[in-house]
Formats: sequence, structure tokens, C-alpha cells
Amino acid sequence: MTREELINLIRRKRSFLCVGLDSDIRKIPQHLLGEPDPVFAFNKAIIDATIDFAVAYKPNLAFYESRGVKGLQTLERTMDYLNRFKSEVFTIADAKRGDIGNTSEQYARGVFSRQDSGLEFDAITVAPYMGEDSVKPFLGFDRKWVILLALTSNKGAFDFQLTENKHNGNRLFEEVLTKSKEWGNENNMMYVVGATKAEMLSDIRKIIPDHFLLVPGVGAQGGSLSEVVKHGMNDDCGLLINASRSILFASAGEDFALMARKEAEKMQAEMSNLLR
Amino acid sequence: MTREELINLIRRKRSFLCVGLDSDIRKIPQHLLGEPDPVFAFNKAIIDATIDFAVAYKPNLAFYESRGVKGLQTLERTMDYLNRFKSEVFTIADAKRGDIGNTSEQYARGVFSRQDSGLEFDAITVAPYMGEDSVKPFLGFDRKWVILLALTSNKGAFDFQLTENKHNGNRLFEEVLTKSKEWGNENNMMYVVGATKAEMLSDIRKIIPDHFLLVPGVGAQGGSLSEVVKHGMNDDCGLLINASRSILFASAGEDFALMARKEAEKMQAEMSNLLR
Repeated sequence: MTREELINLIRRKRSFLCVGLDSDIRKIPQHLLGEPDPVFAFNKAIIDATIDFAVAYKPNLAFYESRGVKGLQTLERTMDYLNRFKSEVFTIADAKRGDIGNTSEQYARGVFSRQDSGLEFDAITVAPYMGEDSVKPFLGFDRKWVILLALTSNKGAFDFQLTENKHNGNRLFEEVLTKSKEWGNENNMMYVVGATKAEMLSDIRKIIPDHFLLVPGVGAQGGSLSEVVKHGMNDDCGLLINASRSILFASAGEDFALMARKEAEKMQAEMSNLLR
Repeated sequence: MTREELINLIRRKRSFLCVGLDSDIRKIPQHLLGEPDPVFAFNKAIIDATIDFAVAYKPNLAFYESRGVKGLQTLERTMDYLNRFKSEVFTIADAKRGDIGNTSEQYARGVFSRQDSGLEFDAITVAPYMGEDSVKPFLGFDRKWVILLALTSNKGAFDFQLTENKHNGNRLFEEVLTKSKEWGNENNMMYVVGATKAEMLSDIRKIIPDHFLLVPGVGAQGGSLSEVVKHGMNDDCGLLINASRSILFASAGEDFALMARKEAEKMQAEMSNLLR
């Protein structure tokens, strides 16, 4: 999907909601466990229930890998289903990959090249620690995106990401933004910035005014949607706000899809009010 | 595998060689492509040919993920085969994972819990960018190891890993070592340090004298074995030296396994001379 198509999608749905498909088999409603593929049945119901209100879906690959071949088959079914709605949803492989050049290229084929792997996403999250040659191979695919970790939503973000550089005073996440924005551009790169650090979004916008940001941490992790919008929105919206557990597990009963829909609808209504 | 078992294995085989199973289907000998699972046939032949000289095997997961469900089945077969030699080999999932706590736990089950995923490795490589809570969940498994990225062998290592901290002058990889050594200990953590930066091993040994290091970059990437040993070996050896392409693709012909064996034997002989 191109940047322009994504912006149009956001305007059409009046939403910048991304639903995180962190579909833990231990947490899905009990009554689905009799299905041939319980997690796919869950994902399909969640997608059907929320697609009017969400512009993006983001399976976190850990929840599929943990179940081995079976999990990967569930992911493939989920992506086949999502790809039926190609112009209606932006899809993100939340994988946080990154390796030396020839290896990152293999990871890229794993998520971008249906012919090789059976999977095709629009975007993948990538970790920056190994630098430019670990990120660049992901940028060699037409209409595909890298979403680079900058400032994450978890407590451990404080361990290294805020370390100040002796020579220019930049914090590590600012170094990541400053250097990496030269590796691609706002048409093929986004950044992960946690909602739990919303006040830092103003600093981030000084470095990358135009890039889209993928923002986890609203909802279960405690971040505020209006604070994120206040500090992070730009003229093209420039935000994808992720919610996972608050939508997926809004109810543990047979009404899980209905309750997920209500939660997504509530978030979309809030977003519609905040969109310029 | 425990630290003591690993040390005994190294003493018994007089080797600290790790064979990286970066088994790219586009690079394996042509005559294998008629096999039901060509990459497994290749891996099995490489393992059989090198097991006398190697103490560890390290499939890089990217080369399996790039082929989707088929690739994961190959990986499962390879691990089932390697696990027949349990006391003879240490196995490493080169995955460079890392995510928020509940998600890292899923990744851990994906590589450590055969019951969940069908896969069981002794160790996994982990990326440090997201900090303590992204690493700790991998440390909750008995006899299993985290191998944390510190100073990698690629050019991109210079982008962020050498950034000096304004407050204490530490380079980022030194910050990673200093903080993370408190998260586990030398019985459940190792570090990745590239052979291409062998002179920095002395600085690293000041911070972590006792931990094992996994050292890529000898061979195809140009690092020197004797330099690595000079600066990095400790009384328990403390080193696993990885070679991938130089062994796997020593020949592209029908003699690939024989040539791989010769290359592994040559490295083992050199290692035997260098072991104290």
C-alpha cells in the first residue's frame, strides 16, 4: 500500500486504529477451542467485527511462532483472509527483526513475498540495534514498509533508548531517527513510538515531521489517545494507534466479537473527533 | 545444556566450533533439489559430516522463515535430528528476537518448549534495544540460554553500538554488557561479539570475564581466529566461534559434505592448538 492510499483510507474510515492480533490461544474464548483452527476462527471473527472501524491489523508473530507449524498455518489463513480486503486494510507483521544484510533479506522475503513464504504483509517492524545494513534489505520491496523501533512503550525502554550521546547530546532514540531517516523516506518508513511517552512526541516530530508513527500503549498499557494526537498528529494524520488486548479480550464469553466491535467503534468515534 | 556440560563438551572434542546452518535453498547443491525436503537433506549431510569437529549448531531462523510453513517443517526436522545428539551438541536459535514482556515469553516458548512449538533449542539470540523486560522472559527456562547481541560483526554495528554515553563515557555495547549482566549470570547468558572487532574483546573481557561469547565473522566476513582467542579466551574457553558459509558452501558439487568436513576439521585442528 502506498502512503497516499493509506492517507485516503484513514480519511474514508475516519479512523487511524490498528488492531493488534496478539491472539494468545490461552486467552481466546473457551467455546472456540472446538474449532478446527481456534485462533483463526477468533481472528476472523475479530476482523469481521472491527473492519468498519480499523485501518490496520498487526499480528504479532510471537503469538503464532509459539505454536510452531500450526501457528504459522493460522497466520497464513489470517493473512489470506485479510488480503481479501486489500484496499481496506494496511497489514503489519510485528516481528521486530534485524540481522546482517543477507539475512535481513531472507526475513523480508518471509513477510513480503507470498511466492516464497505464503505470506504477504504491507509492513514489518524492525529493530535498529544492528544499524543500516540490517534495515536496508527490507526497503527493497515496492509498496512495502519498514516500521523501525524508536521509543518503545515498555519499562525497558529506559535502559538504553534514552542514553545521551556524549558528542551531540542526542538520546539513542533520537540518533536512531536522525540516522535512519536517510536510509528511506516517509513513503517507505514509519517509526514505533510508545503512547506511554506521549510528551516526547513533540521532540520526535522536530526530527521526523512527515513520517507515520505506529503507536502502541494506548489502552491496556495506559497511554492517552488525546495526548498522542496533541503531540504527534500531522497534516496527513501521521498516526496509527494500536490497540490489542483492550479489543481482542473485551469479553471472554460468546459475545467477544460484539464487545470487540463496541470497543473498536468507541475508539474510532474518538479518533473521528480528533482528526483534522 | 548447563555451562559445565558445555565446557566438558569443548574439552572432549577439543573444539569450540559452531556451525551456522544458514541453509539458503538457492545456494545448496543442485543435485539435492530432487529430495523430498532438499534443505533438510543438506542440513543432515552437513551435520553428519561435521559433528566430530563442532560443539554447536546455529540455524539462522530467517533462512527457514523465508520459506513459510515448508521452511518451518525443515527446521523442525533439523532440530529433531540434532536433538538425537543431545549431549554432543549445543543448539542455538539465531533469531535476534526481543519484544515487551508477555510477547518475549511467547517467543521463548517458540524456541524452548517442544510441547508448544515442536522446537527445542538450548539457546536463542536476543536483541537488547527494548531493555530488561524484553530479555528476562527468555531467562525463565531451566538449562536454557540467552545470547544477547552486544557488538555485531556487520558494518552497521558502527551506527549505534559505539555511541558514547555522555554520563560515563561507555559505548552502547558496554552499557548493554554492564546492565544486562545483572539480569542473568554466566550460567544462562552469553553475548554476541563479532570477530571483525577482535581488538575490542579485551575491553569486553574487563566487563564480563566469565561469560561465554558467541563470535560470528571468522571466515567469510574476514575475522581472525587467533586474534579472537588472544583477546577473548578465558580459563573455561569462553568462546563459541561460528562459521557458516565457509563450511556450508565449501563446495557446490556432490562432494559438498566431504569438503564441509575438511573445512570443519581444519578449524577444529586450529582450535585444538589454541585451547589451553
